[in-house]
Amino acid sequence: MTRLSDIGEDALISRLIRLVPLDPAPAAGPGDDCAVIDPGSAHPALLLLKTDALVEHVHFLPDAPARAVGWKSCARVVSDFAAMGGHPAHFLVTLALPPQTPVAWAEDLYRGIADCLQRFGGTLAGGETSSVPPSSAALISIAATGSVLRHHLTLRSTAKPGHALLVTGTLGGSRLAKHLSFIPRMKETDWLVSHFKPTAMMDLSDGLARDLLRLASASGCGFVLDRDYLPVTEGCTVAEALGDGEDFEILLAMEEDRVAGLLAAWGQEFPELALTRIGCLVEAGTGEILEGGWEHFTKDLAK
Amino acid sequence: MTRLSDIGEDALISRLIRLVPLDPAPAAGPGDDCAVIDPGSAHPALLLLKTDALVEHVHFLPDAPARAVGWKSCARVVSDFAAMGGHPAHFLVTLALPPQTPVAWAEDLYRGIADCLQRFGGTLAGGETSSVPPSSAALISIAATGSVLRHHLTLRSTAKPGHALLVTGTLGGSRLAKHLSFIPRMKETDWLVSHFKPTAMMDLSDGLARDLLRLASASGCGFVLDRDYLPVTEGCTVAEALGDGEDFEILLAMEEDRVAGLLAAWGQEFPELALTRIGCLVEAGTGEILEGGWEHFTKDLAK
Repeated sequence: MTRLSDIGEDALISRLIRLVPLDPAPAAGPGDDCAVIDPGSAHPALLLLKTDALVEHVHFLPDAPARAVGWKSCARVVSDFAAMGGHPAHFLVTLALPPQTPVAWAEDLYRGIADCLQRFGGTLAGGETSSVPPSSAALISIAATGSVLRHHLTLRSTAKPGHALLVTGTLGGSRLAKHLSFIPRMKETDWLVSHFKPTAMMDLSDGLARDLLRLASASGCGFVLDRDYLPVTEGCTVAEALGDGEDFEILLAMEEDRVAGLLAAWGQEFPELALTRIGCLVEAGTGEILEGGWEHFTKDLAK
Repeated sequence: MTRLSDIGEDALISRLIRLVPLDPAPAAGPGDDCAVIDPGSAHPALLLLKTDALVEHVHFLPDAPARAVGWKSCARVVSDFAAMGGHPAHFLVTLALPPQTPVAWAEDLYRGIADCLQRFGGTLAGGETSSVPPSSAALISIAATGSVLRHHLTLRSTAKPGHALLVTGTLGGSRLAKHLSFIPRMKETDWLVSHFKPTAMMDLSDGLARDLLRLASASGCGFVLDRDYLPVTEGCTVAEALGDGEDFEILLAMEEDRVAGLLAAWGQEFPELALTRIGCLVEAGTGEILEGGWEHFTKDLAK
């Protein structure tokens, strides 16, 4: 019998979505950071939908501060909206918790959710709480709506061979430190889609090795990575920068002839945050193959 | 230290929602079957949002057929949209499964989801899969958007003292049989909001004892129940009809002088489904108090 641990997350998803009715005319195909719903051409904005879950022992450890877990649960979703050029709106929060969970833990979790909604402008629209058996991991699932102006929408699938690849911040080591406290790059993506709209964009949640492959594949390209220029977090190796995951930095593609102008303007606008050219897209079937990155079901948990 | 098992679900929710930013002008307050978002007066329809989770050992047992679990996961959400007078649109599916789960189980679950979306006209917009530790319960969380015409929107909170209370179908025994295969009452609620719009409406998920109190409280009323007329499922006791939960029938309120006309027209339209007057709303602080109904966190699991 084939089990989930035999095939991994991406293969599972591609097997499952064949079985269900999909939007016959989606504004973005499955596999981008969010689902995009077109409410009709009379509307200037598109509807974004996203769901994301945090599982104890997988995405956070039992001793993580609940307020930071709450922040992370919503910040991951905000990061996905930012990666499309959009903004969050209405949040639904599902808590599935064992009965022995302290009430104060759930309240601190909600304070972290409130911190994130207040900072990025979302509101709580609803949610639900459910018990899980006492031996089960706690789970927080966030579903949210967002919106993006039509001309700001930036997909993963619209870059072309020859476009440069750039990344914000530094990569690696997030699971030791910032995975619970990262700031979604919404200010930066807002500026990008208004001033230097990327040809493709996504946020880095599963590690550059996996996520770069996803952007390149979605755009029908291969890629070449300039390892010497990779912005590696101090104290981390290149392998950790490629594979740790949960960086929540922004990976973007842009025509080569706009890169110099972008980098100059970026330095003026965001002097404290690096933006680094890390390689380029090439024709499909050429380029390189990377190993590493986070894989659900087939990797050990709670490393 | 106070734990979730000490206070129960409703008390927990009321403590949590005080902590987060809420929609400053909601089309329906928190606590109704769905969240209601008003996209602006130019739109004839309101946006509905709902999230709902099924947990192994709590909402289904490990040996339940996966296809039926998939059906139930979405049918619960469809039932909530129906209870507002609306329809489902876009679904996000979150699977949190242990790594040893057979792939065939996940595929059968998705077939059940497809059965429900095809029957009630929803599409899959996205979702996510996450591993949980091997000892954790499987969890399926569904978030969905829906829509309701402004003049069809039916809340819990808009009934008045003196209005009659009616319920569709029969109550009790659902956990032994139909909780995995129930048909959301959308055809019936569609007809109701077009022909005999209730003054308040909700679906019965936690048992009449708890849900009737919720509708009455939301409307600022008490209630009196005519136990002799309660439509009890064959083989069940009155206590089971009040307390089993997961009936997914519709509880509605209506002015007394419209009830005879409603019952006559209902019998013509739905000859195979009972609609029964079970009592009436009274002034707040009067009426009766019921015991029973499903309570997360404080009840034994997997009975």
